Amino acid sequence: MTRLTEAASGVYVIAATPFTETGDIDFNSCDRMVDHYLNAGATGLTLLGIMGEAPKLTSDESAAIVRHILKRVDGKVPIVVGASAPGFAQMQDLTARVMDMGAAGVMVAPPGSLRTDDQIVNYYMQVAEFLGDTPFVLQDFPLVTGVQISVPALARIFNILPTAVCLKHEDWPGLAKITALRKEGTLNRRISILCGNGGVFLPEEMERGADGAMTGFAYPEMMTGVVENHRKGDMERARDLFDAYLPLARMEQQPGAGLAIRKYIMYRRGILASPALRKPGAPLDPLSRAEVDRLMARLEKRLKELN
Amino acid sequence: MTRLTEAASGVYVIAATPFTETGDIDFNSCDRMVDHYLNAGATGLTLLGIMGEAPKLTSDESAAIVRHILKRVDGKVPIVVGASAPGFAQMQDLTARVMDMGAAGVMVAPPGSLRTDDQIVNYYMQVAEFLGDTPFVLQDFPLVTGVQISVPALARIFNILPTAVCLKHEDWPGLAKITALRKEGTLNRRISILCGNGGVFLPEEMERGADGAMTGFAYPEMMTGVVENHRKGDMERARDLFDAYLPLARMEQQPGAGLAIRKYIMYRRGILASPALRKPGAPLDPLSRAEVDRLMARLEKRLKELN
Amino acid sequence: MTRLTEAASGVYVIAATPFTETGDIDFNSCDRMVDHYLNAGATGLTLLGIMGEAPKLTSDESAAIVRHILKRVDGKVPIVVGASAPGFAQMQDLTARVMDMGAAGVMVAPPGSLRTDDQIVNYYMQVAEFLGDTPFVLQDFPLVTGVQISVPALARIFNILPTAVCLKHEDWPGLAKITALRKEGTLNRRISILCGNGGVFLPEEMERGADGAMTGFAYPEMMTGVVENHRKGDMERARDLFDAYLPLARMEQQPGAGLAIRKYIMYRRGILASPALRKPGAPLDPLSRAEVDRLMARLEKRLKELN
Amino acid sequence: MTRLTEAASGVYVIAATPFTETGDIDFNSCDRMVDHYLNAGATGLTLLGIMGEAPKLTSDESAAIVRHILKRVDGKVPIVVGASAPGFAQMQDLTARVMDMGAAGVMVAPPGSLRTDDQIVNYYMQVAEFLGDTPFVLQDFPLVTGVQISVPALARIFNILPTAVCLKHEDWPGLAKITALRKEGTLNRRISILCGNGGVFLPEEMERGADGAMTGFAYPEMMTGVVENHRKGDMERARDLFDAYLPLARMEQQPGAGLAIRKYIMYRRGILASPALRKPGAPLDPLSRAEVDRLMARLEKRLKELN
Repeated sequence: MTRLTEAASGVYVIAATPFTETGDIDFNSCDRMVDHYLNAGATGLTLLGIMGEAPKLTSDESAAIVRHILKRVDGKVPIVVGASAPGFAQMQDLTARVMDMGAAGVMVAPPGSLRTDDQIVNYYMQVAEFLGDTPFVLQDFPLVTGVQISVPALARIFNILPTAVCLKHEDWPGLAKITALRKEGTLNRRISILCGNGGVFLPEEMERGADGAMTGFAYPEMMTGVVENHRKGDMERARDLFDAYLPLARMEQQPGAGLAIRKYIMYRRGILASPALRKPGAPLDPLSRAEVDRLMARLEKRLKELN
Repeated sequence: MTRLTEAASGVYVIAATPFTETGDIDFNSCDRMVDHYLNAGATGLTLLGIMGEAPKLTSDESAAIVRHILKRVDGKVPIVVGASAPGFAQMQDLTARVMDMGAAGVMVAPPGSLRTDDQIVNYYMQVAEFLGDTPFVLQDFPLVTGVQISVPALARIFNILPTAVCLKHEDWPGLAKITALRKEGTLNRRISILCGNGGVFLPEEMERGADGAMTGFAYPEMMTGVVENHRKGDMERARDLFDAYLPLARMEQQPGAGLAIRKYIMYRRGILASPALRKPGAPLDPLSRAEVDRLMARLEKRLKELN
Repeated sequence: MTRLTEAASGVYVIAATPFTETGDIDFNSCDRMVDHYLNAGATGLTLLGIMGEAPKLTSDESAAIVRHILKRVDGKVPIVVGASAPGFAQMQDLTARVMDMGAAGVMVAPPGSLRTDDQIVNYYMQVAEFLGDTPFVLQDFPLVTGVQISVPALARIFNILPTAVCLKHEDWPGLAKITALRKEGTLNRRISILCGNGGVFLPEEMERGADGAMTGFAYPEMMTGVVENHRKGDMERARDLFDAYLPLARMEQQPGAGLAIRKYIMYRRGILASPALRKPGAPLDPLSRAEVDRLMARLEKRLKELN
Repeated sequence: MTRLTEAASGVYVIAATPFTETGDIDFNSCDRMVDHYLNAGATGLTLLGIMGEAPKLTSDESAAIVRHILKRVDGKVPIVVGASAPGFAQMQDLTARVMDMGAAGVMVAPPGSLRTDDQIVNYYMQVAEFLGDTPFVLQDFPLVTGVQISVPALARIFNILPTAVCLKHEDWPGLAKITALRKEGTLNRRISILCGNGGVFLPEEMERGADGAMTGFAYPEMMTGVVENHRKGDMERARDLFDAYLPLARMEQQPGAGLAIRKYIMYRRGILASPALRKPGAPLDPLSRAEVDRLMARLEKRLKELN
């Protein structure tokens, strides 16, 4: 069974959770979505992220989704599962279940009550103790968690814990943090850095030393394109591609509101059978739909100009 | 089966979760604790509160504790169960389970992301929809949740929702809020107001119109004594009693640190077999133990003077 | 003397504060900057904003800058001055001084301690009382202030207070808020809505009913171009322009870090003699400079393609 | 001229700002208040604290009050002045003025935006650079500032900066912090630790190694009594005294609401001519007055029993 390692790179797409209009899990759309991600060149998937609709699922539903997607992916790429929880018992429980099913690792964001460096470091010491040998991704997302993790605190965590193999980087502004983490002497080994924030800084992040992206932008082909062109040394091409998608990426990155946009785009692209969010999620209103429609049309036109 | 109503009054003790030194649930201590609460005059119990160790329990453990305590209490007093959760599916799930077992209602605190009056009111509209006919307690605890709920927002919630029957009041400062809620015209019916904050404002709260306390102070007899003397109109006696316990109550009310003190006192009183907190909870250090010992000795002396 | 009214529209540029390498105010650069803003079509200027370096100025320096710029502008466009302060006495003091000098109005952001609708509304009632007949801009910037102002709270403020003439809109996501405020029946009159957030949603904001922008993007010509093309009904042209600048606007909008980028661009454009920030502001590091340089080169190329 | 040093001990009373009913500064009450503090055994005074009404003063008024009190005190005890400000220029300005007048040092709380250890340490490095050789008190008050300062961060600050001579300790819970700071090896010298939080943990704080109190409880004689009895080794007497005042101290410690109670008590004791707060401060309502009256009567009775 594949386990997540420090070598993780490319694009780990944060998967949406497809629902029918009546709020049931839509497993058919789920399959289409997974295929779409893989066809776009995803090198991994991340399930049950904090920004998605994971909290709206019962624990049985969460397990069903993980099991279903693991089966569909069938070992082609590693699967990471979000395991952030108010308590360690629940985190440990969920981790044991999904690792048993074949997940490659879990992802843990810090609880909002943490403030000082010591509190944050101690928290991840506990996480690692509870997770045993399960590799994990540290999600650094201050805008949502309210927790700011300094470079020295990250260094203490990664240097002490061998199971901390990857940073989901979405501090904002966060470019200097990548540079600091990649600087000789900060960390005692090279960890994986995959960037979030909907991909809106991906070209700069790659040039600063990121290994790729871990985020849920509805067009994963932009992200795989940027990563691939960066690998080939063609940053102008990477940026041309990026710039074409940026007007849409900027809309999708809006906290809270972005998820409805993401699902609407995936619905418009024929991936999801419905753009529905589970309650109390609000559906995208007609005005916003029109805005997105227009941006999608402009994107298509721009992509043609580029080819 | 008893259901929580607007008539709830007296002292609903927030139950601790007893553990052995090795971190297992200690059901024997649990029984002693329940008996102790009932002997002290508790008119209800509240389980799995947000300040306790509920997040350290797996969902199976949570269910086991609720079932065990419901059996021990055997219908003598109503049991409220904390059901705050990041998502409605989990809240609904837990509520269905504990109501089936015989709980009288649940308690729901607002998630920390809520800010405006409309956001808070809408949240509780959703809560009520998901909980169906289950009566619930609204926990108003800004110091911990970060959410400030104004009197107009509370009025909208209680006036619209018949299943919102009780306010766990622990805003701080919060005395003016009780007065405002009891003022003619604010609410369209008299709801139950039970006060928290470790009981450190209980005499003033009773005089302002509270119906009692819902908090976990290690000496529930102080709280039942204050409520009883208030009922009899002997506020000087109520205050004498209160003042005697205040030096200890002040220590126990310290956020975070207070729980270890509470358990240590219950251990010293022979109620719990161990003062242990489940990891990552820190045990009370020797210096703090000595401080508590001294305050307990002074309390005993003072109680003798009063009798 | 011009006073700010509900008719304010176009682009009110938030002025930077130019410093020399040794930290003195650079009045020559200040003049070039003002001329640059006016040449780019600014319809107003806003001085001493909370995101700028106003807090690094002594009150004498603040007064000197306001006086100097008022003189340079010489009545061509109205000047708004940031007057947010921890206390009303200071706010009143500063307002009196700058209105005496010829400012058109002041701007007030809410203090971070406000939470409930009533608290926010009461705060602005007090503001209006202290400011007397001075017209003011309400700055709604939750990302920085931590205060979320609901549409009902805004409606109460604008409907009660005739001197509240303009909303500096930078809620995020905030498009729905513009639509709600422009909806028949929300407000009892049409106020001015000028948008912030570095201009990164300007096309959508204009289409939702904004009157323009009030923000400090280093290329005010993008903003005046979008506003002008929107007025002419040519939104495709407005968006072409906007998209060209978006990769740079996204960099400049980064909280905190953005100001150094803004000043560096203005330095590169020959407007400021130095990109220096006053201490403890950090200068833009070489890596970030190279990133900006590249984006500036790409912008130039893209603008040529568009013409 | 006296300068604050690491030897500061005893009780530094945080002075209230007396106003007349019409909102003017009441210098006569100011004199009575200062005399009262000195007669109660204050070893220092602290002016313009963040919890008081300093933000309601213009800078001229602030200067007038400092000048007036310095003259009244006439060198009998050192005067510390609150200099927290949004920017260093203002902090430096105010510091220069009050040190010129004869203040012994200033007090600086961290701005609410600071989170990581490095951010906090760097901030105080800057503070020290801007203040030059002026000794300062670091105010550690997370409940109000939102900034949690760890022991390692405090150690870095005090160990590097010789002008950081005193900690105003009001972390909550905060007893373990005193113990940690007094532990051999944490700091490279013994600094002064004066405790806040309205004095509600003073006996335990003294036993943990504090040098006294710096807070504004309306009965400074309680605080000087506890400190004095601790010095004499009579902690039972210190606690008897403390316990008698605790029911009132608990009321006065309520955030926000406490200041009106403090002024009302000082008014009832004949120290202030009026209990007025300057607008927008709310006067104490009749119900709260009655509560305080009753507690004052009970205090008097209890003090008699103790003597």
